[in-house]
Amino acid sequence: MDYLREDERLDDLQFKGLKILQNPRKFCFGTDAVLLANFADIRKGDAVVDLGTGTGIIPIILAGREENARIHGIDIQDDMVEMAQRSIELNNLSPRVCISADDIRGCYNTLGEGLYSLVVSNPPYKKIGSGIVNPESSKAIARHEILCTLDDVLDTAYRLLKVGGRFAMVHQAERLAEILVKMHNKKLEPKRIRLVHPNLRKAPNIVLIEAVKNGKPFLKWLPPLFIYDMDGNFTDEYKRIYHITSQGEETFQGGGYGEE
Amino acid sequence: MDYLREDERLDDLQFKGLKILQNPRKFCFGTDAVLLANFADIRKGDAVVDLGTGTGIIPIILAGREENARIHGIDIQDDMVEMAQRSIELNNLSPRVCISADDIRGCYNTLGEGLYSLVVSNPPYKKIGSGIVNPESSKAIARHEILCTLDDVLDTAYRLLKVGGRFAMVHQAERLAEILVKMHNKKLEPKRIRLVHPNLRKAPNIVLIEAVKNGKPFLKWLPPLFIYDMDGNFTDEYKRIYHITSQGEETFQGGGYGEE
Repeated sequence: MDYLREDERLDDLQFKGLKILQNPRKFCFGTDAVLLANFADIRKGDAVVDLGTGTGIIPIILAGREENARIHGIDIQDDMVEMAQRSIELNNLSPRVCISADDIRGCYNTLGEGLYSLVVSNPPYKKIGSGIVNPESSKAIARHEILCTLDDVLDTAYRLLKVGGRFAMVHQAERLAEILVKMHNKKLEPKRIRLVHPNLRKAPNIVLIEAVKNGKPFLKWLPPLFIYDMDGNFTDEYKRIYHITSQGEETFQGGGYGEE
Repeated sequence: MDYLREDERLDDLQFKGLKILQNPRKFCFGTDAVLLANFADIRKGDAVVDLGTGTGIIPIILAGREENARIHGIDIQDDMVEMAQRSIELNNLSPRVCISADDIRGCYNTLGEGLYSLVVSNPPYKKIGSGIVNPESSKAIARHEILCTLDDVLDTAYRLLKVGGRFAMVHQAERLAEILVKMHNKKLEPKRIRLVHPNLRKAPNIVLIEAVKNGKPFLKWLPPLFIYDMDGNFTDEYKRIYHITSQGEETFQGGGYGEE
C-alpha cells in the first residue's frame, strides 16, 4: 500500500523500525518534540493525550517506548490529522495510538475529564505579534499562540488528567517564570525539570517540565542537556535520544532545535 | 589596632586587599554568598541593602566592585553584627558600608520604604523541620527559616525598593518554582537567572535570580555556572569569581557550596 501523497516524504525514525510522514511545505516536527517524547515519563498502562500532535511524532515515539499504553493525539488542522493517521497505520500502531481532529480548547468534552494518567504537549511557543507572516499557515498555527495559548493548554491538561496524573511539556526557557506561575495557579504542580542548552557555555533556550495534578511542591532538577559539544558536534546524549548512529548525521529531522 | 577576638580568624579575600573576620565556631560565609555578590548587578550610585548579612561578606565584596555606592547590611544576630562592623572598619569601608542589628521582618521601618535601588539576600534556605539540631545556634538561624521565611524576605525587599529597583537573591534550585511564583505574586518580576551546577553532568542545586520591582515579565537566562570540571578541579570561571590564583587552592572559604 502506498501511503505517500504529493509533497510528502517518509522518514525513518531509526527507532524500532518506526517511520513518519512529513510534508515540508506545511510543517515538519522539530527537535523539541523529540526531546519531549524522550523526557515524558510514560509508564505501563498509561492513558495518554498529546495536545497539538502535528505529524504525530510524539505518539509514535511514545508508542515505541511503551507498548502497553493507549495514546490519543489531537490536532486542530485536518490535513495534519489525516497525514498523522496514515503514519499510525503504516506503523501498525492502530488502535493503541489514535489521532483525531479536535481543538485543544474543549477537547475534554470529547475525550472525557479526569481519565488520563499522562498529558503531553509541544504547544505553540510564541506570543501573537512576534513575527507572524501568515496566520493561517500550518507553521504559524504550530508556532504562534494563534488558536491556543499557554492558559488553554494548562486548563485542558488539568481537566483531562486524573488526580496525580502527569503533564509533560516543552517550551521556551525565557517563559519559564510565567509557566511555573501558571502551572502552580492551575494546580499543576511543577515536579521535574530539565533545561536544554545549545552547548555548555550557552544559556538554556528550551525547558522540559513535568507537573503533577494536585501534587505537592517539590522541584526535582535533572542534569542539563547540551545539544552540541564545543567542537560543534552533537553530544553523545543527544545522539542517543535521536538514535543517530553515524557521525553527527541526522537522517530524519524536520524543524530545527528550539524553533517550533 | 587589633581587630581579632577569641576564636576569630582574619581571612584575606584576595580581592582589592579586602579582608574579613570570621568565627568558625559560630558561622562562616559560604560560596553561595560570594556567587551572589558577583551576580548582583551593582551600579554607580546604587543605594543597597543586604538582608541577613552575617559576616558582612556581601557588602564587602560589593564595595570592592563599586566604589560609588552606599551599602547597608542588616542581621538579627548581635554578635555577627558586631564582628561584621569590625570587618568594615578594618577595611576602611565606613561610612559607605554600614552594618546594623535589625530584623528582616520590619527593617523597612528603620531603613525607609522605596529608597533603595538594589536589595540583595542570601537568606536561610531550609524550611523548618528539615534537620535542625539547635534552633538557637548561629548556623541554624542562618540556614533554616527559623526567624525569617522566603515570604518575609520578598515582602521586605519589595518595600525597601524603588519602582524599577533590583532584588538579587541566591537560593536552592529545588525551591525555584515556589520562588518564581512568590516573586511574581509580590510584584518582584523575575528578570535574570543563572543556575549553578556542581559540574556539567549534574543537576543545578543553586539558583541566582534577579527580580525587578513592578517589572514586566521577561526572563533572561545566563549560561550555567559549573563549580568543578570533570577532573574535580575548580573551573576557570569559579576561580575568577573566587580570585583563586594558585592551583585550585581556596584560602578563605568558610562554608561549603550550596550548604548555607
